Amino acid sequence: MHVLVVGAAGMVGRKLVDRLLSEGSLRGKPITAMTLHDVVPPAYPEGTAFPVVVTHGDIAAPGEAERLIAAHPDVIFHLAAIVSGEAEADFDKGYRINFDGTRLLFDAIRVAGYGPRVVFTSSIAVFGAPFPDAIDDEFHLTPLTSYGTQKAVGELLLADYTRKGLFDGIGIRLPTICVRPGAPNKAASGFFSNIIREPLNGEPAVLPVSRDVTHWMASPRSAVGFLMHAAELDGDTVGPRRNLTMPGLAITVGGMIEGLARVAGADRAALIREEPDPTIMGIVDGWPRTFDAARALDLGFTTENTFDEIVQAHIEDEGIVL
Amino acid sequence: MHVLVVGAAGMVGRKLVDRLLSEGSLRGKPITAMTLHDVVPPAYPEGTAFPVVVTHGDIAAPGEAERLIAAHPDVIFHLAAIVSGEAEADFDKGYRINFDGTRLLFDAIRVAGYGPRVVFTSSIAVFGAPFPDAIDDEFHLTPLTSYGTQKAVGELLLADYTRKGLFDGIGIRLPTICVRPGAPNKAASGFFSNIIREPLNGEPAVLPVSRDVTHWMASPRSAVGFLMHAAELDGDTVGPRRNLTMPGLAITVGGMIEGLARVAGADRAALIREEPDPTIMGIVDGWPRTFDAARALDLGFTTENTFDEIVQAHIEDEGIVL
Repeated sequence: MHVLVVGAAGMVGRKLVDRLLSEGSLRGKPITAMTLHDVVPPAYPEGTAFPVVVTHGDIAAPGEAERLIAAHPDVIFHLAAIVSGEAEADFDKGYRINFDGTRLLFDAIRVAGYGPRVVFTSSIAVFGAPFPDAIDDEFHLTPLTSYGTQKAVGELLLADYTRKGLFDGIGIRLPTICVRPGAPNKAASGFFSNIIREPLNGEPAVLPVSRDVTHWMASPRSAVGFLMHAAELDGDTVGPRRNLTMPGLAITVGGMIEGLARVAGADRAALIREEPDPTIMGIVDGWPRTFDAARALDLGFTTENTFDEIVQAHIEDEGIVL
Repeated sequence: MHVLVVGAAGMVGRKLVDRLLSEGSLRGKPITAMTLHDVVPPAYPEGTAFPVVVTHGDIAAPGEAERLIAAHPDVIFHLAAIVSGEAEADFDKGYRINFDGTRLLFDAIRVAGYGPRVVFTSSIAVFGAPFPDAIDDEFHLTPLTSYGTQKAVGELLLADYTRKGLFDGIGIRLPTICVRPGAPNKAASGFFSNIIREPLNGEPAVLPVSRDVTHWMASPRSAVGFLMHAAELDGDTVGPRRNLTMPGLAITVGGMIEGLARVAGADRAALIREEPDPTIMGIVDGWPRTFDAARALDLGFTTENTFDEIVQAHIEDEGIVL
């Protein structure tokens, strides 16, 4: 079992690699080789029982995708992307990496002709307002960002290439990932993580929106679980509709803060300062809030049921001492 | 008003050019120049009061799209496509023309930077079974052919490029066009036209499916009407969801034959011989049947209300003497 992770240096990519190494097997077979790729060099994992190739480069550059596929990896995780804000600000870069890069990777797999499992990370950004109360599995793709458009195109290609038997793809639409570890993030969605992570570190945090804003989220641990389960799934049980909205937790900001207080104490929650920011409020207003992820739940994907679990997962996974 | 028609040699393209010439104006301005493009040379229209450039070439070849956009046409109709059956049989050709060709055309317009109206012909092939009883304007894109996938990608690009202000696009999902003039067509959907056109010409025709099969159709005259209306529409009234399912007539094959008999006589309808073909029945079974095209109707698109009108339009437009 040779596993390729494209986008292995990102936050989810690093956690996925850790999980693959701790499991040691995938799809019922021991992992015997791993290739980790990103635009910057991913960290070389220490102490593995099998060879790991760590490589970096531009996925949209000529020959790069072919190079990654040359050894015929059995499972390919495609996580690489220019994120939403950057893809919106830099049209050419977003289309080059997210659109052309994905197409080039899929085509390299097609030309290699050996039909591996491909797990593609899509996003709830494929949906754009106005929304129904809960977005179900048959709601149309109406992205309102270039990032969402590029992810939607990736989904369509994945489904068609799978239908044609060129590879065996599963696309997963990730919720907002919370709590993101690391430094405060200036992305419009960054505050969802900041208001939990910073108080857990004893630091103040700013809340730029109202407490009654609802959002759809899952922990990094859940995201890795989604990827692992997508790699394991029997394609026949999925059928031709290969792109799945992942389960998540729909919760208000107020509910998040209550969860933080329950797990870590009211003094931590008191470190959050409300400073309404009309710009961020406007952006967040256009985001989807609640989904009915029935298909993914039927197919065995699981996530947190309470925000307390999301806070607890962050404390455990980041080794935080309260 | 300079009008560019890409795909001008096809059946709908030719009828669109005729209509543009007879109207003489578009978007309230007289047509003063026209460029007609296709992979084969379109016919040169006679007796026009303005210059017409007739040109042919491969839309996906380097420089071809830039060449077409160099004169900054005000309205661009993009009808060019490898049709469904061929795109399914020849994966590379379908993706090269329908996917890359459309992207190259859109990008040439983007780089030219002058924001024209672009009318893109999409298809109900963007939808794949299983379907609800009637497919509404919020049903997801689930193509089950490469052609449908390529059209869905075109729709997504059109919406994103429009949102970014790079051009002002309208995508229209055409129903099956019936009655197609010309020689009998061997496409799986060809019989819908054959069973009307051939008897009107006094020739026998074969019906390969059951009379209770329902299908979604509109006349070539309606298709041209959709294109003209899409060119005229105020983009602000359309909003960000730029791709519209066109209205059509949901009718059974039995209803079609009754309409033929009413308009042209029972002796014409008697020329239809039933020869069930399991292969064609299987293909047709996966096609969408009925739509609720509420948005397009609200935006003023119109079509036939009865099959008698569709038969009558064919008789008039093709100059058939019964």
